[in-house]
Amino acid sequence: MSGNSIGKLFTVTSFGESHGPAIGCIVDGCPPGMVLTEADLQEDLDRRKPGTSRHTTQRREADEVKILSGVFEGKTTGTPIGLLIENTDQRSKDYSKIADTFRPGHADYSYQHKYGTRDYRGGGRSSARETAMRVAAGGIAKKYLKEQEGIEIRGYLSQLGPIKIEKVDWSIIDSNPFFCPDADKVAEMEAYMDALRKEGESIGARIEVVASNVPPGLGEPIFDRLDADLAHALMSINAVKGVEIGDGFDCIDSKGTQFRDEITPDGFLSNHAGGILGGISSGQQITAAIALKPTSSLRLPGRSINLRGEAIDVVTEGRHDPCVGIRATPIAEAMMAIVIMDHLLRHRAQNINVQSGLPVLR
Amino acid sequence: MSGNSIGKLFTVTSFGESHGPAIGCIVDGCPPGMVLTEADLQEDLDRRKPGTSRHTTQRREADEVKILSGVFEGKTTGTPIGLLIENTDQRSKDYSKIADTFRPGHADYSYQHKYGTRDYRGGGRSSARETAMRVAAGGIAKKYLKEQEGIEIRGYLSQLGPIKIEKVDWSIIDSNPFFCPDADKVAEMEAYMDALRKEGESIGARIEVVASNVPPGLGEPIFDRLDADLAHALMSINAVKGVEIGDGFDCIDSKGTQFRDEITPDGFLSNHAGGILGGISSGQQITAAIALKPTSSLRLPGRSINLRGEAIDVVTEGRHDPCVGIRATPIAEAMMAIVIMDHLLRHRAQNINVQSGLPVLR
Amino acid sequence: MSGNSIGKLFTVTSFGESHGPAIGCIVDGCPPGMVLTEADLQEDLDRRKPGTSRHTTQRREADEVKILSGVFEGKTTGTPIGLLIENTDQRSKDYSKIADTFRPGHADYSYQHKYGTRDYRGGGRSSARETAMRVAAGGIAKKYLKEQEGIEIRGYLSQLGPIKIEKVDWSIIDSNPFFCPDADKVAEMEAYMDALRKEGESIGARIEVVASNVPPGLGEPIFDRLDADLAHALMSINAVKGVEIGDGFDCIDSKGTQFRDEITPDGFLSNHAGGILGGISSGQQITAAIALKPTSSLRLPGRSINLRGEAIDVVTEGRHDPCVGIRATPIAEAMMAIVIMDHLLRHRAQNINVQSGLPVLR
Amino acid sequence: MSGNSIGKLFTVTSFGESHGPAIGCIVDGCPPGMVLTEADLQEDLDRRKPGTSRHTTQRREADEVKILSGVFEGKTTGTPIGLLIENTDQRSKDYSKIADTFRPGHADYSYQHKYGTRDYRGGGRSSARETAMRVAAGGIAKKYLKEQEGIEIRGYLSQLGPIKIEKVDWSIIDSNPFFCPDADKVAEMEAYMDALRKEGESIGARIEVVASNVPPGLGEPIFDRLDADLAHALMSINAVKGVEIGDGFDCIDSKGTQFRDEITPDGFLSNHAGGILGGISSGQQITAAIALKPTSSLRLPGRSINLRGEAIDVVTEGRHDPCVGIRATPIAEAMMAIVIMDHLLRHRAQNINVQSGLPVLR
Repeated sequence: MSGNSIGKLFTVTSFGESHGPAIGCIVDGCPPGMVLTEADLQEDLDRRKPGTSRHTTQRREADEVKILSGVFEGKTTGTPIGLLIENTDQRSKDYSKIADTFRPGHADYSYQHKYGTRDYRGGGRSSARETAMRVAAGGIAKKYLKEQEGIEIRGYLSQLGPIKIEKVDWSIIDSNPFFCPDADKVAEMEAYMDALRKEGESIGARIEVVASNVPPGLGEPIFDRLDADLAHALMSINAVKGVEIGDGFDCIDSKGTQFRDEITPDGFLSNHAGGILGGISSGQQITAAIALKPTSSLRLPGRSINLRGEAIDVVTEGRHDPCVGIRATPIAEAMMAIVIMDHLLRHRAQNINVQSGLPVLR
Repeated sequence: MSGNSIGKLFTVTSFGESHGPAIGCIVDGCPPGMVLTEADLQEDLDRRKPGTSRHTTQRREADEVKILSGVFEGKTTGTPIGLLIENTDQRSKDYSKIADTFRPGHADYSYQHKYGTRDYRGGGRSSARETAMRVAAGGIAKKYLKEQEGIEIRGYLSQLGPIKIEKVDWSIIDSNPFFCPDADKVAEMEAYMDALRKEGESIGARIEVVASNVPPGLGEPIFDRLDADLAHALMSINAVKGVEIGDGFDCIDSKGTQFRDEITPDGFLSNHAGGILGGISSGQQITAAIALKPTSSLRLPGRSINLRGEAIDVVTEGRHDPCVGIRATPIAEAMMAIVIMDHLLRHRAQNINVQSGLPVLR
Repeated sequence: MSGNSIGKLFTVTSFGESHGPAIGCIVDGCPPGMVLTEADLQEDLDRRKPGTSRHTTQRREADEVKILSGVFEGKTTGTPIGLLIENTDQRSKDYSKIADTFRPGHADYSYQHKYGTRDYRGGGRSSARETAMRVAAGGIAKKYLKEQEGIEIRGYLSQLGPIKIEKVDWSIIDSNPFFCPDADKVAEMEAYMDALRKEGESIGARIEVVASNVPPGLGEPIFDRLDADLAHALMSINAVKGVEIGDGFDCIDSKGTQFRDEITPDGFLSNHAGGILGGISSGQQITAAIALKPTSSLRLPGRSINLRGEAIDVVTEGRHDPCVGIRATPIAEAMMAIVIMDHLLRHRAQNINVQSGLPVLR
Repeated sequence: MSGNSIGKLFTVTSFGESHGPAIGCIVDGCPPGMVLTEADLQEDLDRRKPGTSRHTTQRREADEVKILSGVFEGKTTGTPIGLLIENTDQRSKDYSKIADTFRPGHADYSYQHKYGTRDYRGGGRSSARETAMRVAAGGIAKKYLKEQEGIEIRGYLSQLGPIKIEKVDWSIIDSNPFFCPDADKVAEMEAYMDALRKEGESIGARIEVVASNVPPGLGEPIFDRLDADLAHALMSINAVKGVEIGDGFDCIDSKGTQFRDEITPDGFLSNHAGGILGGISSGQQITAAIALKPTSSLRLPGRSINLRGEAIDVVTEGRHDPCVGIRATPIAEAMMAIVIMDHLLRHRAQNINVQSGLPVLR
């Protein structure tokens, strides 16, 4: 199985570089009979799209997705869905300077060691541009999960550098450029980002993703645990350095009586575990969080080496996100949707006839 | 590919329940010609083994591993290595009470929804007992990485509940029951654990794992990133709720100039990224951390339901680890070894002939 | 995914050498709740077992399978099923002579090139002994398919060297040592085999396998076609050199009007396609045939080379099947069962809710 | 792993329907640094292309392949190669009639049972049109194998209905419309096809594929045998009903002394095994053969049913190949190339450092 595929039954395989003619992916395993149009996928693509506010890269990409196969007369056929997005605003010249230099904190150096060559234009394959295909593919999973199982997957920015949100109002998330759920923090974030941009700096962020109405019983007990597959999928997003399920690292200083989520006939009394017990969904909300590092593409010079191993100063011109976390919310939602979709299909395969005899508690 | 397998080229597939006749695994993909004896694997198994101090479960398991295939005249043959450990100290009676009850915080409830049935003895398949096979399989990877590539993988306990270590002295890790690298904290941990045991409580922990001398270029740029695969493997360990690579969640409030690891001809100036750039090893130390929750198996009663959905109080008798994190260090080392081994083989497959033209920096 | 595994959702991973302590496998993906005992698997193992007539190798193996996991209180739990068979009658001395020689027509030479080493005792990993685990694993699939779907999988010997059967009487297949369905040919086969044994020669054979009551719709249209996966599984049996689906090679000189299986409301008018159309089951009987070469292990000397590349004469002492095809029928049944089981689970995953609106025709 | 992917390390994933906007595939795992242009792939695409003689379908497709990623400055980068071919000559009207009918001998009926729906235009996903992508992907493997390992993969038509070739002259294969290697048979084939076309009939064919200079040691001993993977890949070609390796079905009536390929210090004395021993390449030529059935798309009426299960007569208008085998040679070459490429990479992964100590014999 190839390194550019994810999922065993709902499989997404992607291709494409930042400055090639196009990026694309193949979504294999989507059940037949679901109504699907390009508009269904465009919505999340537009949420991720650059250039929608002054706080993200000014690169302008239409990010218009085309469905090339797997849909007939408006419905999925069960055959692979080919998706394509053409690259329109490339400006290779911006990047020509760094052809033989290695930007600190970027994949340039490790790439050169792996492949002995690289498409240096805009990071090539390691550009966050590739995540557009994840969002498109995840949109298919999201739609299926919503329509067939009532599963909803939503995310938000919970921290921007030093600024932590204090409340979650789902209704405002898409009405500000940060996917911030706390109306009182938006202005502060705006100001922080403006100052950061002047400074030429970048900053990290924290994103939360939540899946509701997931049926209990999805996952596997050992390696392909639902939480392990989520960790894999979320850590595979550019710039992510940490993943938490439920309370995550707060569990270290918790005691067993506090942390174990007690159960009553009316439901669970808490959800420290984040909706996953022993690698299998419990029916509670599945909650995960990720930490995204600050981008290393800065106009402030950084020390590095060139292809000849000589010391150089690297200044990254061009258009970059001062906080890559800002656009990451739809990507994290997409990855969670792909993982849950994959496990839903796996569950049907092995356990479709199972009667648990237990109530479904939330 | 089955849910009980991990790795694409170095593949470990495990089987076995806590109270069945035996547990075992198949290690497929180990190169031929490596000297391998049961003693090579027993060392780490003994580090993980229960009952070695008063701070772990008193269940006594010899955990003697047998090599059933794949080794001939003392060397690996390249064919699958079958490993088996017999269960000797089972005491099923300890568990019969909970046959139709669901322990809060355990896999019991989610298991019942997935399978409609479960081997309730000692958690059956979801028992941490299964991790013995991971340690045995990981021992093969560790030995190969050490001998063939000079790669060393070591871990330690960095936090036990509220007690954080302040220094890392590798020489003392195996000379205390906690894998604690800070001699000044051992007594404190002893006292804390004694009190905890009296209380009937359990506590969480934090483990760090480090891989040294990993060649640059291992990993993949998109889904099968080295960090993503590490996150998957580490999150698949029982009780783990969070995974960090390098600085992990500290990156949220870091600025780009601080976080990007600058490069000089003499080497990197820092390692915030944890030795992985763009999903590919940089040649620096690979550092990861995990958070383990407190076990939910307590003699202090917890509210739950039974198979009929009725409210009950659950008291867990039997022998349990008050801190499952204490024995997790060898398991985390094993999982990291399996992932790095898998990517080493994948690297050879695609990139064996690559000349990067770059110096290897640490 | 490892080279010793087959199946994506119903996955069998095997290990073990002819003269090691034991052979075994892990069956992952069996649905929970099926009654399963060792006796269920022993039946086919005994059909495959050597030494049951003078026409097969006189090696005596009890071939007693142990279920080590995945079954609790007599039923499958949905967790991996570990199976083990101990090697009892090994006689390594028989083989010591050929330690540094390469038997013509055997894997010895290609093995040495692949691994640079091999367990030369009885062919080591490439011994047909490994097929015992396939039969045991296939027995689980066979039982599930029979009980849950009414699918029956049966095979027979259709040709032994020059002797072709002329009719198929299912009732006599297990009452003669050849799995021959034509009572009139059994004596002829007995005589032929006796003469062959005196001569010191070996001979090839042809086996047919048939699956009945397979629901229409199992398979995939492109690479993972049901026929392609059957070809893979059947060609993976030791000594198989050819695979046919339906009429197989007879299709070359057939015309379209003869070959296309016409359909009426009462059913198909023929089954030249062997129950598979476009890689997907049609609901008709699935029919496949395999050709097995004569074994190369003969007491008649054969020219070869030794480890130093010198010309030598190889005489294979020890106990061998003069016609490996004789014992292959249960193995072919098992491989077909594993493939159909895998596709049944895959079908449930993606298409469980499909309503075709068509009658099921046979 | 998805049903539309083949290969574990050199992985091809395809998408697209006969009458959608485009077909395409992703080739993942190609090593970096190989010179690759669209012209390299176009050559074989043109050999497969329809409408090049009166003996194939008159559908006119330019079949111009575009490389969308994975190549930079004329060389492969090691990242996935996206390939796209636009459908230009579709004529959906030709097919509208059969929207609710099921052509006998086609995937229509089994498809409807699997998916409950289908893109009926030109067979949709089950159209042989998809094989264009296999040829393009196989072209990448062919080029790599040729340049890096000196491996050459070539095929030819060995039988057209009743007409069997009697000699193999590689030099003429591409100079006649049948890939026929016997100059004396070409006229006969021309006449036969002309008569067949007048009749409105179709006919089967037999193709041979040969790989030369394959290093010994490629393959696996158990399930992922080189011959088993070849059988899978070749049987996955539309209309193939049988696969042979080496002498194939002729082995049934062969004796051991005839069939075992004896070895001398100067080389093998025969190649009945077809270059594969125990699932692993021996270094001899790898030879395989496939049988292709006559197409079922005929203007001569055939009995079938419609979506309401009613009896109907099906007459297939439109443009079809009277012998699908005629265009299958480049497809068979491509599939063999993909399998050998995959095993070459797998060999490097596990056995790159192996020294066999044996001479390479042919």
